[in-house]
Formats: sequence, structure tokens, C-alpha cells
Amino acid sequence: MPNPSLNALPTPCLLVDETRMQANIDAMNAQLQRLGVPLRPHLKTCKNIEIARAMLAGHPGAAAVSTLAEADYFFRHGITDLLYAVGIAPGKLAAVAERIEAGMDLTIILDQAATANAVVSAGRQLGCRFRVMLEIDADGARAGFRPDDPDLVSTARKLVEAGADLAGVMVHAGGSYGCSSRQAIVDMAATERRAAVTAAERLGAHGLQCRQVSVGSTPTALRAQDLAGVTEVRAGVYIFQDLVMAGLGICTESEIAVSVLTEVIGHRKAQGEVLVDAGWMALSRDRGTASQARDRGYGLVRDLDGSDLGEVIVQATNQEHGILAGPDNAAVRLADFPVGRRLRILPNHACATAAQHAHYWLLDNQEPARLLRRCNGW
Amino acid sequence: MPNPSLNALPTPCLLVDETRMQANIDAMNAQLQRLGVPLRPHLKTCKNIEIARAMLAGHPGAAAVSTLAEADYFFRHGITDLLYAVGIAPGKLAAVAERIEAGMDLTIILDQAATANAVVSAGRQLGCRFRVMLEIDADGARAGFRPDDPDLVSTARKLVEAGADLAGVMVHAGGSYGCSSRQAIVDMAATERRAAVTAAERLGAHGLQCRQVSVGSTPTALRAQDLAGVTEVRAGVYIFQDLVMAGLGICTESEIAVSVLTEVIGHRKAQGEVLVDAGWMALSRDRGTASQARDRGYGLVRDLDGSDLGEVIVQATNQEHGILAGPDNAAVRLADFPVGRRLRILPNHACATAAQHAHYWLLDNQEPARLLRRCNGW
Repeated sequence: MPNPSLNALPTPCLLVDETRMQANIDAMNAQLQRLGVPLRPHLKTCKNIEIARAMLAGHPGAAAVSTLAEADYFFRHGITDLLYAVGIAPGKLAAVAERIEAGMDLTIILDQAATANAVVSAGRQLGCRFRVMLEIDADGARAGFRPDDPDLVSTARKLVEAGADLAGVMVHAGGSYGCSSRQAIVDMAATERRAAVTAAERLGAHGLQCRQVSVGSTPTALRAQDLAGVTEVRAGVYIFQDLVMAGLGICTESEIAVSVLTEVIGHRKAQGEVLVDAGWMALSRDRGTASQARDRGYGLVRDLDGSDLGEVIVQATNQEHGILAGPDNAAVRLADFPVGRRLRILPNHACATAAQHAHYWLLDNQEPARLLRRCNGW
Repeated sequence: MPNPSLNALPTPCLLVDETRMQANIDAMNAQLQRLGVPLRPHLKTCKNIEIARAMLAGHPGAAAVSTLAEADYFFRHGITDLLYAVGIAPGKLAAVAERIEAGMDLTIILDQAATANAVVSAGRQLGCRFRVMLEIDADGARAGFRPDDPDLVSTARKLVEAGADLAGVMVHAGGSYGCSSRQAIVDMAATERRAAVTAAERLGAHGLQCRQVSVGSTPTALRAQDLAGVTEVRAGVYIFQDLVMAGLGICTESEIAVSVLTEVIGHRKAQGEVLVDAGWMALSRDRGTASQARDRGYGLVRDLDGSDLGEVIVQATNQEHGILAGPDNAAVRLADFPVGRRLRILPNHACATAAQHAHYWLLDNQEPARLLRRCNGW
């Protein structure tokens, strides 16, 4: 059976423009080649093996994941070096040990002496040699030891003395998402690198060698000017890009590779608003552009072929309804959006919007070419 | 194999307290019995057949759904009278016709003359007699003909003359979610009833009889004082309740039946904040309490057994991280939240949080009793 056309696909559904996606991969690879550091792609955005393989091409083959479900899925598909890049919950150590036993080269992260104690204790109890990276905090945005935290060295020593494999240090400069200028992101990339390298040097000075010095976020990876001392870069959202990244100047809107296909189902004539069949269930509740210079509501509306329609956004959502309007609720010309017209919506946050869907339709030359599944869940 | 205990379930995951859920069902049934109107439960919240059967007990057996995927799933499990309660997209009419052909008593809704034209045309082309309800707008919140809209009667007549089955009218007073007092919800329920009954009477006066006069939302269903002229009530979120409903005074926090199980993975000592392994992926990005008197962030934290821990909320989220703090970012006593402690998080919006999960663990007397699947997707 031939694939349905864009006009026949059931709505709402998730589309990925393969040409744009490959251009995003090429841009990241060119940047990292300039800097001489390989990529450990973060697969939490794509959650699909075919896309993961495209991200991994030309790189060592190691990847980062955000759930054990992703780790299992990618391991089944041949990716063995996996960094589970969320501070390990002690309750997950038995599950981690099972996966190591099964041959997965799974690395966990931690940033607390208390967690290191739990890892040491579980390692003894389960007879498992856990591979650990220490999370370092560059920007106060989330987690990690500060590079000068006295607990950093003592925790690393405790792990090594208990027989754990100390792989190195990792930093995620999540604060880069809140930067308001290109220079601020350049500076954040330097801060991220410095935090990682400083922590690794401190550990090394105490005889605790770091094989891996891992940094990354899409904005800092694409804006870094120097990665001396860094052994790998992690990034995930660059694969699709999104409106938050466009608001940061990290991509243009025409580089966003993922969108939600939707159909007009009605008009609110008095308000000059258009109803579509993509609500927060299809778009997610993410409002990441709300704090940026241009608030894009729940997403930016594009024509069926992806081309520009001006500033029409999804102003509001219910579970399966989206309400389209201009900025500041300006009315749109309803005659331009007849019932039955199909549109695409560019997401605020690619990770969040993609997570609402079990599958992607990969578009080749604007025609649905293949249906790819995502490994959602935990 | 016995079920894992709450301490052994993989985190994050979704829990449903069966006792609380049944109490919510009983409360809705008692209210509707007082008013003498049966329930057409909206299954978009639960998306599970076992829970749907509990909602349907004592009622005629008709249900409302928000996707054709729900319609298919519930039809396979024996529910045949299904209202697809989202304005029909013309692109879905062929799929609707297939389901009618397969024996589903599927009703569609519309609120536009243009959509009626598409239904008439598809009905002729596909040889299908569509069953249609006209959506009526009570509060300007989303969709529907105003009860006095001149297009209402002409659209109904066009449908009937073309051979469609005009089942009646339906109203959803979504504005009830924004009410700020008990009386405002009581008044909204009266407005909702009046809009539906007025529209049905107008149609009847033109010889267009309405078998069904359908109203509903959880707040208006639970606060209505009179439903004269109404033939069925729709409600969905009452099955679980949530913090938005608690903020509206529709339930108490101790009546919320759904929660996300999580585990402490770290501390931000300087800020007095706690990191857990439930981020927006497990909780959703819904911030429904942000506009209420008490903003609960991304959810309210409870002890593992569901009991009160005071006002600790999920202040911020990343994809797989939640950051717990007191109101206004007040520090919490970190010693009370050691790494490895398990907690539950009550959701802002049950529909949105549940949608992030493929399964529920149903708790019987605080022990995981059964794993129920949800029919997510479209």
C-alpha cells in the first residue's frame, strides 16, 4: 500500500522533514569537527534508532539517554555505550546492574555523597562494578557538584576505593536556554567547559583520573569557541531544533525539522480565531517561548508545505483543540483558513512536543516516506 | 510473580488509588441521581476500559471520547454508543464512515455551516448516514453556535434535508474552569443548561427535534442545581480529580485519586531544594494552578502513602528532573527528603499528567494491584 499523502494522513500527527534534519546534523558535525571533539548525541529528543544512527554517523558510537527505557531500546538496536544522564535514583541501581550484566556499557551519574554511598553499597550487594560520572554544576541551573566543592574529591575517592569505575565528569549548562544574547551563549559555553575541565583537573591532582570530560547542550555546543580539555559533547534538540532555539538565535525558523500536522475544524467569527484539531495533547503544554522576546503561544503556524504564513500562532489550547490567532490575540482573516485546510505547527520545544506522539512520519521531499516509532515511557 | 510494592515500582510511574476513584464515582452518581439525569462519561481522562466500566455502572452505557483511537479502543471493548466530542475535521469523515459501517454508533459534532456542507457531501459520496449533534456555545470559551445564531436552524435543516441523523445539541461550559467562586460555577451550570435547552427548543420550534440535549464539565456537573430539559451529562476529570479542581473547590486534595510516584535523587543545598526523578515528562507541562489563588507549580508533593507533607511543590521541571521547594521558592528541610526517599506528586491537571503515561498502577489499600493500560494517541 502506498503511503498516504500529507492531505490524507490522520490528524494530528508528527512530521519530520528529513532534509532539514540532515542539515541540522551537518551543522553540528561541522562545528564539532572545527573544535576537534566528538559527539555523544543525547537521544532523549528523537527516541528513535534510525534518527539516532544519523546523529551517530562519523562519531564514536556512544550516546546519552534520559530513561532506562531508552537505554534498553537503543541497546537492543546495537548502541552499547550509553550514559544515563539523570542523577541516579538509588531505587534504580538493581535495574542498572541487570543491564550491565546483560552487556550494556551503561554509565550512571551522581552529584551527592549520599548517592555515592548508595552506589557503593549496591555495588557490594549486587556484585556489580558501576561506571560513574560525577555531575558538575556550571551555572546553578539544576544539579551537580560545584567544581570547587570539597565533597567532589572525597566522593570520587570513596567510589574508586570501593571499586567503582570513575569514568569522569559531565556538565550540562541548562542555563544556556535562558541566555538573551549570542555572546551570553558563547560565554556560557566557556563557563561550561571551564567547570568540566577544572573539576577534572582537581580530581586528577588527587590521583583520580577522568577519561571522560563531557559537556553539552545544543546552544553551548553550537556556540562554543574552544573545547580544549573536553573529550565529548552532548546535544540532543539540535536534531529537530524548535522555536525556543530560534528565539535564542541558535537556528532560524526555516531550520526547524519537526512539526505537527493539523486540520481546521472551525472558526470563532467574533474573535477572528480559527479552531484546529491539535490541542495540548498533540503540541504539549510547553510554553517555552513565553519568557522570550517573541511569545509563540503553543506554536507557530505554517502552511501544509512548511512555508511561512506570517505571525499566526496557537494562542490557546484545550485537550484536542487549538485556537489560532495573530500576536496579542489579533484576528486572522478567516477566509484564509477554511474548514478542512491543513496546516503545520512548529513547536516551542521539540522534546516536549515529540513526547506527545508514539510515531513520526518522516517526510522525503514533502511526502510521507516512513513511519518511525519513538520509545516513550520509562 | 507478585506485584512490586510501592517501594519497588520503577519510577516515575502513575498511580491510581481505587478507593478514592470509587468515591469520586459515587459522588458524581449521587449528584446526577438527585438531578434525575444519566451520565455519558467522557473517557478522555481515563482512556482505560476497566475505569470506563466503573464510570458507566448504573448509566445507559453511552460515552464520550476525544479521539478516534479512543473510539476504536472502547468499541473493541463493547462500548458502542460513542460521541466523538471534538468538532469534526472534514478529513476524518471517511474514517468516521468506516466505523459506522463496522457497527459503531458514532456521533460527530459540528458548529459551522461549512462543516455541515462537508458532512452532507461526504455522506452522499460515501453512502453514509452520519449522526450529528450541533455544538452550542454557552460561555464564549471555545466552540459552538450561540443559541440564537441564525445559522443554527439553517445548518440543522440542511443536515436533516440531506438525510443526516440530527441527534441533538451539546454544550461544554469550559469557562467553568476559570470560575473563582462556588456561586460562579452554580451560575455557569445554569447558563450551560439554558444554552442547551434554548437551542433545542429553537430547533424544535422549527420542526427539528432533538433527542439528546447534552451538557457537561466536571465543575458544572457537580454544582448544577437543576437540569430540566437536559437528557445527559458529560464529565471526565471527576474520575481522578486534580489540583485545578481542588483550587475551584470542586474537590479536596485528599480526594485526588491520581498521582506520580517519584524518588529523591539529590539536593541543591544552597537553595534548600530537592531533586526528584519526575520532570515534565512524567508530570506534563501543565501549569493550570498558575492562574488560581494557590499556584502549585507542577504539582503538590505527598508522602509515599499519600498523606500530607505540608506545602511542598514541584517548583520547576526539566525533562526528567523535578525540583521541589516550598511556596515562593522557600527552602525545605533537606534532612526530611533524603536521597532515595519515595514521594507522590498530585497533578495540576489529571488529563494532562495521565497522558504522559502508557499505564496506571491501580492501588488497592496502598498496594499495587493491577497494571491498566491507556489508549493514548490518535
